[in-house]
Amino acid sequence: MESVTRPTLLIREQVCRENIRRMAEKAAASKVIFRPHFKTHQSLQVAGWFREQGVEAITVSSAEMAGCFASAGWRDITIAFPANVREIYRYRELAQSINLNLLVDSANVAGYLAGHLKAEAGIFIEIDCGYKRSGIQHTDEKKIMEVLHIIHQAGNLTIKGLISHAGNTYSAGNTTEIRGIYAETLEKLQFLKERLKAAGYPNMLISVGDTPSCSIVDDLGGVDEIRPGNFVYYDLMQYHLGSCSLDNIAVSVACPVVGIYPGRNEIVIYGGAVHLSKEYLPLSGKCFGLVVSYTHDGWSSPLPDTQLAGLSQEHGIIQATPEIMANIKHGDLLGVLPVHSCLTADLLKSHTRIV
Amino acid sequence: MESVTRPTLLIREQVCRENIRRMAEKAAASKVIFRPHFKTHQSLQVAGWFREQGVEAITVSSAEMAGCFASAGWRDITIAFPANVREIYRYRELAQSINLNLLVDSANVAGYLAGHLKAEAGIFIEIDCGYKRSGIQHTDEKKIMEVLHIIHQAGNLTIKGLISHAGNTYSAGNTTEIRGIYAETLEKLQFLKERLKAAGYPNMLISVGDTPSCSIVDDLGGVDEIRPGNFVYYDLMQYHLGSCSLDNIAVSVACPVVGIYPGRNEIVIYGGAVHLSKEYLPLSGKCFGLVVSYTHDGWSSPLPDTQLAGLSQEHGIIQATPEIMANIKHGDLLGVLPVHSCLTADLLKSHTRIV
Repeated sequence: MESVTRPTLLIREQVCRENIRRMAEKAAASKVIFRPHFKTHQSLQVAGWFREQGVEAITVSSAEMAGCFASAGWRDITIAFPANVREIYRYRELAQSINLNLLVDSANVAGYLAGHLKAEAGIFIEIDCGYKRSGIQHTDEKKIMEVLHIIHQAGNLTIKGLISHAGNTYSAGNTTEIRGIYAETLEKLQFLKERLKAAGYPNMLISVGDTPSCSIVDDLGGVDEIRPGNFVYYDLMQYHLGSCSLDNIAVSVACPVVGIYPGRNEIVIYGGAVHLSKEYLPLSGKCFGLVVSYTHDGWSSPLPDTQLAGLSQEHGIIQATPEIMANIKHGDLLGVLPVHSCLTADLLKSHTRIV
Repeated sequence: MESVTRPTLLIREQVCRENIRRMAEKAAASKVIFRPHFKTHQSLQVAGWFREQGVEAITVSSAEMAGCFASAGWRDITIAFPANVREIYRYRELAQSINLNLLVDSANVAGYLAGHLKAEAGIFIEIDCGYKRSGIQHTDEKKIMEVLHIIHQAGNLTIKGLISHAGNTYSAGNTTEIRGIYAETLEKLQFLKERLKAAGYPNMLISVGDTPSCSIVDDLGGVDEIRPGNFVYYDLMQYHLGSCSLDNIAVSVACPVVGIYPGRNEIVIYGGAVHLSKEYLPLSGKCFGLVVSYTHDGWSSPLPDTQLAGLSQEHGIIQATPEIMANIKHGDLLGVLPVHSCLTADLLKSHTRIV
């Protein structure tokens, strides 16, 4: 730790590998394809730990990310983001070298891909089961059929199935609600699958996979594929949703102490919005992270009555207790458990260490 | 614009140059040193536009940033962040090659720099005039004198002056309050300057410089140096504070349209938290940006009754009007005026275009 001079993402390999193993085993026990989302870690090294668990098929959230992992030898990639017609040249390149799956929720874009992709690509129809971000409304069978028809007619496109992200689990108040949202999503997709089967589309996969559902629901059977991402590191948001314990959080951000203000029980760390993101939990005030101290083999539980209460571009303000204030020194490292590890890991991509 | 395929920061050169010119002229008219903060743009090209206005001395927020600009020929740099003892080796290198100024607010760190810096560095004592982030309380003359004494005794450190950031202007309700905070900050620093003069420290510069104060206060005389940063681009937060007009905002993020949902009057763009940051304005709901359309020579005023209302990692959700919905197509570009241009520009550092 002596050589940590600036905000640095520390990844606890053992905890992270355990998170991967647990989800891989749950997928296997549920007899579903495990196609983890790599947007959280975006790391070739962590990707290798997935491969050791037998993972071959992955999910990413951009064509750029797909390109990175394709270059590193991953050959089966779903870009779980609405196909962007402006990136057709990237899709073309990818489709020529790997098994590429794209998401489509409009006849327009389906037609565009049919007309402009040269090599074959798999297409998932994105279905909105209630999250209201992207996807065709699960009840809009007319539109779903219209899009399926275009894909079916196209020589270069293969219908893969129905894909949905139940991001509304992130607004759930407790794990019962999360189970409820999952069950409802599943019911809608299974109903749709049966309707499409009757209409002549027999082999539609169902792909789902938000981390809260995949963590909390015990048996994930009933779908064909899961695509959770965040579980690889977890974070405070997941902890508050009930998806994980604090011990499952595999990352912290090591931040040098640069200011000590005993008069107001506050510590300023080198660690701000450009390192942690401005994601917060509305606890007692805005909580931008909990604070841990480093030990010889990892980090402590969150320090009591202590939180990262403010962020500017490079500064973080920690509200602490008099006990902590009494023992802190300039140049000490404090760890921040991030609120949203996907955003934090993205910001610290080039400042990461495995511990 | 045809070649924009992903979220891209567009910088309107003319607007940006005008923002720089106006602030440089105000500094000159006020007879204060103009040491702009480069953390907002972090761009060598934009830095060149400052140089054309006669700027030689700059401010940055990290040792890394200082290293970048030093390599590009900038020779007088203040790192406006509490000196971080873990980066002593970087400070050493910088102090050997440029005129480096550091910020100190503790006897501890002052002593450490005195013992470990090899070449000479200038030291500003950071003073807290009410923002409560970093700095010695303006009333704590005992501590200020203690730190000054250490610096004065050290052969390698030169006392430069008192530095303060009145970041509390960002919580002001109106421009009158901002003027009030500025006047109060000034009064506190001038009083302290006189006290220190009487105590044998005669030549202390006063350095201030948040963008709201520097934009709104007409005459900046009374201090010796200003260090605003955000004004180079401005943003919606500054607009809402009254620091600028919408026409002064020099950046927008061009985002491809990837989803169209007329049923709920929403558009999904490729542009999420990893491009724009999760900074928001609490307007009617959380506003993560206003939306503009592109014209042959720049962009329109914000589209009426339309805002970026939600962000996930790569998706942005725009709430729009039926009129806008009727004319939008997949693959169109929409522009987002960012809430906080410093964070957005940092995220899009490698995806920027001058227009």
